[in-house]
Amino acid sequence: MQRPEVLIVGGGPAGIGVAVALLQVGVRPLVLEARRVGASFLRWPRETRLLTPSFTANGFGLADLNAIAPRTSPAYTLGEEHPTGRAYARYLQAVAAHFAVPVLRERAKRVVYREGFFRVGTGRGTLEAPFLVWAVGEFFFPRYPFPGAFLALPYARVGSFARLAREAPERVVIGGYESGVDAALHLAERGVRVLVLDPEAPWERRTGEPSRDLSPHTLDRLRRAPRGRIRFRRTKVLALQLKGEGYVLLTEGGEVRTPHRPLLATGFGDGLEPLGGLLARGPEGHPLLTLEDESTLAPGLFLAGPKVRHGGSPFCFIYKFRARFPIVARAIARRLGRDEGPLEVYREEGMWLEDPACCEVRCAC
Amino acid sequence: MQRPEVLIVGGGPAGIGVAVALLQVGVRPLVLEARRVGASFLRWPRETRLLTPSFTANGFGLADLNAIAPRTSPAYTLGEEHPTGRAYARYLQAVAAHFAVPVLRERAKRVVYREGFFRVGTGRGTLEAPFLVWAVGEFFFPRYPFPGAFLALPYARVGSFARLAREAPERVVIGGYESGVDAALHLAERGVRVLVLDPEAPWERRTGEPSRDLSPHTLDRLRRAPRGRIRFRRTKVLALQLKGEGYVLLTEGGEVRTPHRPLLATGFGDGLEPLGGLLARGPEGHPLLTLEDESTLAPGLFLAGPKVRHGGSPFCFIYKFRARFPIVARAIARRLGRDEGPLEVYREEGMWLEDPACCEVRCAC
Repeated sequence: MQRPEVLIVGGGPAGIGVAVALLQVGVRPLVLEARRVGASFLRWPRETRLLTPSFTANGFGLADLNAIAPRTSPAYTLGEEHPTGRAYARYLQAVAAHFAVPVLRERAKRVVYREGFFRVGTGRGTLEAPFLVWAVGEFFFPRYPFPGAFLALPYARVGSFARLAREAPERVVIGGYESGVDAALHLAERGVRVLVLDPEAPWERRTGEPSRDLSPHTLDRLRRAPRGRIRFRRTKVLALQLKGEGYVLLTEGGEVRTPHRPLLATGFGDGLEPLGGLLARGPEGHPLLTLEDESTLAPGLFLAGPKVRHGGSPFCFIYKFRARFPIVARAIARRLGRDEGPLEVYREEGMWLEDPACCEVRCAC
Repeated sequence: MQRPEVLIVGGGPAGIGVAVALLQVGVRPLVLEARRVGASFLRWPRETRLLTPSFTANGFGLADLNAIAPRTSPAYTLGEEHPTGRAYARYLQAVAAHFAVPVLRERAKRVVYREGFFRVGTGRGTLEAPFLVWAVGEFFFPRYPFPGAFLALPYARVGSFARLAREAPERVVIGGYESGVDAALHLAERGVRVLVLDPEAPWERRTGEPSRDLSPHTLDRLRRAPRGRIRFRRTKVLALQLKGEGYVLLTEGGEVRTPHRPLLATGFGDGLEPLGGLLARGPEGHPLLTLEDESTLAPGLFLAGPKVRHGGSPFCFIYKFRARFPIVARAIARRLGRDEGPLEVYREEGMWLEDPACCEVRCAC
């Protein structure tokens, strides 16, 4: 194998997606993936499905919302509108195979930048390249936002809602955005009584912005949910404690007691720690990026995936963060003197967002 | 009211959509609608839903697949991914109101072209304008493709599958593309045993082209359908006859007898008859159009909606035919000397298809 020009850490939609974009412009990437391509999606609860709908409209400049490469479509590969995580991982693996993306099954342990090269330590020695794309996703990094949160069951460790439903007839879910409501719905459909706690009450929110509102798919599911089995409460959880045989949640609205381990659906961290001082962070902890999604501290280090953020707008869905793949690939192609023309197909299919500040979703009706 | 510059016949997605595009460039349209805005959708079977999913991704250049105007989204207006016909009509009415589209509740009876003006006869006299956009849709024009087809119940007259399911415990459905499978699924979910007949067997087809394959949404529904209640048979219906108390279908594979009125889901005609000689037709009966969707015989007459077709590609979904709204509006704006710049927003949102031949959907994976 020729020496890679770009090391990509993470073999999910962002890592494979950037690799495909780089291959279009003749740049040699190498994806480091600790588990398998699509590992995060393989760990999704079995029953959970993508909430953005897939559809094969790419011939009309409207790429499948869940596609990571032009002229591909999970709806086509899988014949499903809302694939499960497992099914979506099959699509990612099909894309990696179709575009012959080089993938090395190794965990990236340390990252060092020295003399124009990123050196990434793995179990089989150190790899190096002049460019590094960090694309580890977020699913493997649950956030524990209050004291005792580690006592709860993170959404990412659920495994199967069918199994969880058999364990207990009632369940408290902490967090009421997509993951929390998804958990509540799957459990309620299996007979569990659920209490969902969230200070923001996302179940009531209608801003038009998909990163803040529940998706139409989830709203549909809520309307069809078994009556009375899910209760929502607008309150903030301040702490979680073990007490006797059960749990006590201290909330702004008083104590909530439950004999069963609460489910934690309060979002995800960012997995950026191994980058240490190579990436600056803003006052709220978000990574600071240039207009090409490059680190402001370490030229050649790019971020891809759901933790990309510009202004107040997170790129937290596939159809959002993929629009930056051609931007990253173009930046690298230019520095290596390659022709960026082949990236035009991303623009044709609506997978191109030049100005990251322009991306708020607002609807008149 | 000022004299309209463009008469638009039909107040569905195509008519209202073209009117909105014309208003962007300062052209005065008048929509003639015999019933109410969204009348076709109001006549859909109560239970039927749009098969293309709605989602609010327009900030990322990915308009809601069912939107007819930029910066609008049925997913936002309705909070649903697959609206019913009734709900979608509410969205159309909201768009017409928001953009102040002038609508006259009159049926267009006759169309005459004389001395540079289209004269459209209505119950309240004749209207005239230098441009005419024909946008009557297809739903009100069932196709009767074999002798005796008129004996069957057209899909467009179903009204309610719940009611139909109560009428008979079994039903033959003629036609196995989206409408036929939709009917079969709704009936089967209500306990009816269904036999679907189609010589093309669309339920087996996987070409990647949405106008030929069943949609991902429908495939999902088929997978969840009650086992054994729907049978599919690849055969062509040649004729339908009344016999005694029941019906006999003569098919290529022999006779099929049923005591209950078969359901006809064999597609739609085009409602172009009132245009008479103003529109040429190709060898297969399709209307012949210029690259601006204008009649090749009568300059100033444009076609909009699902019967627009170029090469072998029908524009038979909303997300397809809406991509021609700005093309028609631009053609008219240019001839009237108006600035076409405001149409750029259609391009930004992926609602713009310049070259109608380029629109086939093909997926690598």
